[in-house]
Formats: sequence, structure tokens, C-alpha cells
Amino acid sequence: MRMHPFAWAPSGRLALLDQTLLPAEERWIEVGTVEALVEALRSLRVRGAPAIGITAAMGLVAALRDTAAAPREIFLAAVERGAAQIRAARPTAVNLGWALDRMRRRAASAAGDAHAILGSLEAEAQAIWDEDRSACERIAEHGQQLLTHGRTDAQEDAVQVLTHCNTGFLATGGIGTALGIVHLAAERGKPLHVWVDETRPLLQGSRLTAWELLKAGIPHTVIPDGAAAGLMARGAVDVVLVGADRIARNGDVANKLGTYPLAIAARRHGVPFYPVAPSSSFDPACASGDAIEIEQRSAAELTAPAGSAVYNPAFDVTPAELITGWVTERGILKPPFGERA
Amino acid sequence: MRMHPFAWAPSGRLALLDQTLLPAEERWIEVGTVEALVEALRSLRVRGAPAIGITAAMGLVAALRDTAAAPREIFLAAVERGAAQIRAARPTAVNLGWALDRMRRRAASAAGDAHAILGSLEAEAQAIWDEDRSACERIAEHGQQLLTHGRTDAQEDAVQVLTHCNTGFLATGGIGTALGIVHLAAERGKPLHVWVDETRPLLQGSRLTAWELLKAGIPHTVIPDGAAAGLMARGAVDVVLVGADRIARNGDVANKLGTYPLAIAARRHGVPFYPVAPSSSFDPACASGDAIEIEQRSAAELTAPAGSAVYNPAFDVTPAELITGWVTERGILKPPFGERA
Repeated sequence: MRMHPFAWAPSGRLALLDQTLLPAEERWIEVGTVEALVEALRSLRVRGAPAIGITAAMGLVAALRDTAAAPREIFLAAVERGAAQIRAARPTAVNLGWALDRMRRRAASAAGDAHAILGSLEAEAQAIWDEDRSACERIAEHGQQLLTHGRTDAQEDAVQVLTHCNTGFLATGGIGTALGIVHLAAERGKPLHVWVDETRPLLQGSRLTAWELLKAGIPHTVIPDGAAAGLMARGAVDVVLVGADRIARNGDVANKLGTYPLAIAARRHGVPFYPVAPSSSFDPACASGDAIEIEQRSAAELTAPAGSAVYNPAFDVTPAELITGWVTERGILKPPFGERA
Repeated sequence: MRMHPFAWAPSGRLALLDQTLLPAEERWIEVGTVEALVEALRSLRVRGAPAIGITAAMGLVAALRDTAAAPREIFLAAVERGAAQIRAARPTAVNLGWALDRMRRRAASAAGDAHAILGSLEAEAQAIWDEDRSACERIAEHGQQLLTHGRTDAQEDAVQVLTHCNTGFLATGGIGTALGIVHLAAERGKPLHVWVDETRPLLQGSRLTAWELLKAGIPHTVIPDGAAAGLMARGAVDVVLVGADRIARNGDVANKLGTYPLAIAARRHGVPFYPVAPSSSFDPACASGDAIEIEQRSAAELTAPAGSAVYNPAFDVTPAELITGWVTERGILKPPFGERA
């Protein structure tokens, strides 16, 4: 299964599979301005830390095409202005700022006129995508060793993976991170079953991960997030694989809300717990989870009555001490984490 | 706030506030047959362990009115048949079987003709309701001592309570169990703030508990279930109060799905965790949580794509070792639990 939720449209704009409409409808939209890209990021038409880094870079290029005839200094100012606007769309995922910083550096160091700089930026965006695709393959390869019967009976054949949110091809430029491990194993014929947290409030698990697993023909069962701990208690989970939106220097992981309670339950039940992410999700500027800004989302994402206050953080922080290992394209890091990142 | 979600209709039928329509609409329905009662229980038009015990008893009476002219033996057979059908509607909550057994015993021991037995059953149903109302008051009184600043700063005034599902006047014959403690404290002017788990998949927290708290004017904030652990981590929760659908002899508690992960997180963060329930929720026939039958609900309650399997248990089991104490109308039981129940 090698499918991507974004592409270059023939018009030169960024084409996005609108993930807010899945699984009911597979509709593509085209993005040609910074404003449209910011809207798509904020509305989660594209989401997933690696995917938003790649699409931020591609979308910046698409938005700059109209300025390619401008003087060099005007063009460079537009790069800076666009990058700043896009960066503010989603504060928690480190990949967004990381990709935009690569684009800014590439623009600043490129020779020639606006047209030439635009060409360099297009190449840089493609490089970001290609590197992520390649990182996903290596991550998936490293992760294969984690798919063993740790808790369930080997007699029952299928290894039981539990995952949260969506970390597959919809979330990355390649096969996926946590779910990429699953996709690769399934391609190789390994018997697997995936417990899919529905992932409140926006249901990226039951809408997106289930959709991916159906496309790939991988056996899976959607569960309410609150059911995961009970499954672990009865020994129905071999390993928990999740994504990571930002990893601090000490190994603390910010990821989709609901990851932290999973990690607590996994620890209680002796189930290995692995965040899976490309190195671009590591934030060397961030000492620990306490320093990670957590994006607050709209109250409208929950169904509370008018008049009730709502607290709806998009992410939570899992402390390094609850983590069995961090799976990256460079291999599986194990504690003590220290300065290894 | 003293309001009830059920009543005797002037017709002699059971009137129910249809809780599936809250908070959008406050519509009452009338139930006059066993079939209609079973449908109302299965569809969760009435829910909450104490409330379903009371309404089972009242609904049985309502359904038997048409048989009051029948010979005694025919009437007694109708009692048995009706009770068996109603009992099967919701397997986990012990109060349902407990209330129906009281009705069966009362019928069997009543003298006279069918009309006289019906009168006895009506009195018994009313007694079940009155006892629950009274139990709620005593539970709420005992629970007041739990509303102290354990984790948050006393300078911030409001005691921070976290709760799950709905355990207020919509769930009982009185002021409520876990939420009854909150209601009584608020009536007495104690500053409180309630974190309301939305409670997937049927949102009894964000739909019902938030609605009750709005009615009562009690400050509260609705959160996705996955946010509770993070709130505990930052010291924003003084105490967790939840209900109980069945309590085993060893103190294990079956309650709404999502209770167990809350208990695990509370233990990790040193937050006291109390199930709150009338003694009728204790099941002396049940040695431990392993013996509790867990009701499986329809896949349609989740939003998974067609083709995806769904696992949707209504309840989970919290082991006694994670419980700080059990609040009942007789006081607060503390471990070791042993044979005290």
C-alpha cells in the first residue's frame, strides 16, 4: 500500500485529499495561497506531523508561484511572511517549523532571481517529501522486530498491536510511522490484528486508521479510547505503537490527546509502549515535555451543551519514563535517553 | 435541585424523560408494556444503575395493570414472565435484578387476588424509589468530607472534582450518587468546579452531566475522556468520584467504560478515587470483577467505516486495589474490604 494524501496538481498548486471527509468521501482540494493552506492545516484537512511538514513546504511553493516575476527582495520577503503565517497554524508539531526553516534557509542561500529561488524551493519541498518517504521505510524496517507475541499467546498467531490516532500513509509522505510498521509487516504476510483507538474528539482512528487498514486488507477492530486499558488487563495487546508530534531532549513525547493514559495503562500491564517518528520530530531546543506548547482546539469539536465550558487540548505529554523505546529511521533508541538525540 | 427523570403518569403508566434526546430536547414518553420498557432500557432512554432498578419495578407494575382482573395464578405467572424479560435488557447493572427480585418476592408473598397483589407491587416499587432517594441523601452527606483540597491549592477556592458518565438525578431516584455529593455541596454554597468526562461513546457526561450541572448552576468543564490523566498530571484534580453498576464481594467495581483508565491515572498521580453507590449495587453473589458479565453494545454507537469490526463494551472493571474507598449510604468503606460488604 503506497498511497499519498497530497500531490502536485497539474496547475502547480498543492492537491490535498480532504481528510475531514474520510471515510465517507474521497475528495481532493487544491491549495494555491498561504491563506488556503493555513485553513487546510487548522481544519485538519491534512494532519499528521510529517505530512504537515511536507505540505507546508509544498503549499508555500504553490503560494509563491504568483510572485515568481517579482524582484528578488520582494520574493524573499514573501517567503518569510508566508512561512511565519503557516508556522502559526499548528503550534505543537515540530515538523511544521522544521520544514519551514529548511525552506527559509534554502531561499536565503539560493542564487539568482525569484524564478530561480522558486525552483530551489520546489526542489527543497520535494526533498523533504522524499526524505520522509525514505525515513518511513527505514522506520518500518526497524519496527518489524517489535511485532512479537509479548503478552498474547503465540498459538493465536496474529500479533496484537494497539494504536492511537492515525500514523499511516495519510499522516506522512510514505508508508507511515507507527502504522507504517504494521503496513510493512502485512505486506510481508505477517499475521496481525490492530486495535484502533477511535481517538476523540476528531476520530482520526476510527475515520482514518480504520479506512487505511480496510484499504490494505489488514484485520482490525475499532474501540472507544476508554477500552484500551481493559484490553491490556486481559492480555489482549502485545505492543502499543503511537506517533509523536514533538519529542523533547529528555525523551518526553507530545502526541495526540489520549496517548498519555495509554502509556500509563501499558506500564501497569507490562505492555511495551513505543512512539514512532522520524528524527525531524525531535526538538533539540526543547528540554522536556513541560516546555512543549500544547495546541488548544475549538470547543465545537465536542458536543457539550451551550453554556458549558470545554477544555479540548489537541495533545498530551507522555514522560520518557513510561516509554519502552523510540523508533526512528536511525533505529530504536532505548533509555537512558539522555543526549543521544 | 430535586428533579426526577421518571414519574407515574396519570394513566398509571410509567413516564420517562427520554435521556437519549438530552440536552437538545426534554421530551417525556409513556411506558405501559414490558416490551416498551425493555426497549427504553436497551436504548438507554433511562439509564444509571439505581434509576433502572426503580423504573424496572415501576414499569413492571404499569405493564401488569391490564392483567389485574385475571386469576391470581395467571397474574403471578405474568409477574415472573415480565421480570425475566426485563432482567435480560441490561445484564451488568445489579440493581435491575435486585429490584425485580424484590418485586417477585413481594408478589409471591402477597395475599388476595391479582388486584391486591398489584397494589402490593405498586407499594413495593414506590418503596424501592423512596429508599433510593433516601440512600442518595445519606450518600451525599457522607461524601461531603471528600470535597477537600488534596491536590490543588486551597487558595484557588474551588475544590476540583473529576467525574465520568452521569451519576446525578438523571441516574437515580434522588439527588444522585457521585454527582449527588456535588449537588449537595453546591446547595450548601461550597465552591466547586467539576471536570466532566464526555464519556464515549454515548456521551452521558457531555450530554447529561453537563446538562444537570447547567440546571444547577455549578461551574464545570467538559473534557474528552483522554484529557483526564493530563489534568491529574498537572495537579488540577482533587478527587475522582464515579458511580458503580455492580460491586463484587472483593470490592472490584464494574462501571461505565473508561472508569478503569481513570483509576489507573488517579493512582499514578495520588488522586483519591471513590466509587459512589447505594448498597443495592453490591452483589454478594459475585466474588470478584472476573465474574461480572460485561454488556456488549452495538457497533453503531461508534463511527467506524462499514467493514471495520467494532468492540464496544458498555463497562469496565476497576480492581479494588486502585480504589481509595467506597461511598455508600452506610458510610465510606475503606480497604481492606474483605467481608465488610
